Amino acid sequence: MEIVSENKCFDGVQGVYKHKSTSCQCDMTFGLFLPADCRNDATPVIWFLSGLTCTHENAMLKSMAQYFANRHRVAIVFPDTSPRGDSVPDDEAYDLGKGAGFYVDATEEPWAKNYGMRKYIESELPKLIFSSFPLSPELQGICGHSMGGHGALTVAMSNPDRFRSVSAFAPIANPTKSDWGRKQFLAYLGEDESVWERFDSTILMKETGFPGPILIDQGTKDPFYDLLMPGSLMQAMADVRQNGSFHLREGYDHSYFFIMSFIESHIKFHRQAAGKS
Amino acid sequence: MEIVSENKCFDGVQGVYKHKSTSCQCDMTFGLFLPADCRNDATPVIWFLSGLTCTHENAMLKSMAQYFANRHRVAIVFPDTSPRGDSVPDDEAYDLGKGAGFYVDATEEPWAKNYGMRKYIESELPKLIFSSFPLSPELQGICGHSMGGHGALTVAMSNPDRFRSVSAFAPIANPTKSDWGRKQFLAYLGEDESVWERFDSTILMKETGFPGPILIDQGTKDPFYDLLMPGSLMQAMADVRQNGSFHLREGYDHSYFFIMSFIESHIKFHRQAAGKS
Repeated sequence: MEIVSENKCFDGVQGVYKHKSTSCQCDMTFGLFLPADCRNDATPVIWFLSGLTCTHENAMLKSMAQYFANRHRVAIVFPDTSPRGDSVPDDEAYDLGKGAGFYVDATEEPWAKNYGMRKYIESELPKLIFSSFPLSPELQGICGHSMGGHGALTVAMSNPDRFRSVSAFAPIANPTKSDWGRKQFLAYLGEDESVWERFDSTILMKETGFPGPILIDQGTKDPFYDLLMPGSLMQAMADVRQNGSFHLREGYDHSYFFIMSFIESHIKFHRQAAGKS
Repeated sequence: MEIVSENKCFDGVQGVYKHKSTSCQCDMTFGLFLPADCRNDATPVIWFLSGLTCTHENAMLKSMAQYFANRHRVAIVFPDTSPRGDSVPDDEAYDLGKGAGFYVDATEEPWAKNYGMRKYIESELPKLIFSSFPLSPELQGICGHSMGGHGALTVAMSNPDRFRSVSAFAPIANPTKSDWGRKQFLAYLGEDESVWERFDSTILMKETGFPGPILIDQGTKDPFYDLLMPGSLMQAMADVRQNGSFHLREGYDHSYFFIMSFIESHIKFHRQAAGKS
């Protein structure tokens, strides 16, 4: 693992690190904010999965997360959203290939070799982080935005013992029924739609739900509202009596201005679920 | 109007008053909590509509509302849930007749003469209260529990200019599709189901929504969950992008212990919507 940069930020450190990834068969970069007094028995870790077109940098630079993470003494991991590099296959569209990994393990060509984002988030990156920094896997929560909200919800429901809490900003909530999802699942996972189901929050909610609390914020002026399908997930949450809160936020859109407006409540939510409030 | 009782309570006064009601053709009793320093340009008024089997007393005695109402300087009105008295028709069932007015104006016999709870809440009681106490109709919010949650939501959506905000605890959210609703609407309103629709929150949400914010709390261990149908209202809120928050509260049931656990957040919500935070 290589240190790309480490900057003092509030009372903590914002680091950026690079490592060779076996899941993605390329170098991968991630951001990690460590608050002051970081201790592996005391500091909750929040994973922030970003959305389409993002790298590890977007949320790190635009969400204001560090201000609140330092104040509430939580660490935040900012993974990239896809494999990177000249040897990695891509597509001309913004919503397929680089910047659009969709947090699945691709099985189809030309994606299968590099697009292993699911195992990267589920296994490889946590192993690296918990062996390299004073953080404990006992106190994890996961959050995400848009495609990353889809990632956070589906990763959490597939790993109920790993995360104490999950939250999302404007998640792609029912991708097997949306143009944000069907195109990518067909490309990465192939034609058998039954394989897609474990990557759909609404379906997983109906099947298993999540043992901890869920927090979701969705802007009412989100230009991608119809692609996100928040109503499907709300209905599913009600059907299974999922412990959770769903906020329809008047006037907010899909941007980081929306995220920064509510990031503190997400950080406090995860901190409380980690038993630290 | 007759003073039944006035008790100092925190820094304010908890009053109970009786008056002859034209809407209900009987004497009606209501509770009113006035906080300290009550002024008609400054004190928000929250209507609290109670549920099946309740009188004006239940929320007044069991919700802890006064503690928070005084602290946050809001007034709370506690109306009764049906007409009362020996001359008023009743039914042996707990969910029809006295204590079960369902906040409609009955058109069918034997209910039509007395069961005018909708016009009582929409017109008669506010007129009396705003002419008798130092309160202003400019700063109203409405809240309710169960049958009263149904009342609060439908009265608010039918009177969008009157209320700045509406909230509910475990509302009967889709009564035209529930055994809590169909039985009563048939008895009070007759067989034409199209008449029932203006008394159904889910239908009104899809048709008009509400211009202000909505807050709903629903316990996941509510024994009446399936009768309440929260998912239908959540889906409708998502469909129309309603400004609002829906909390599925892990482990809470249908009781006043649930209500007291979250009543402060409702009072603060209405106070903020009244521009007083």
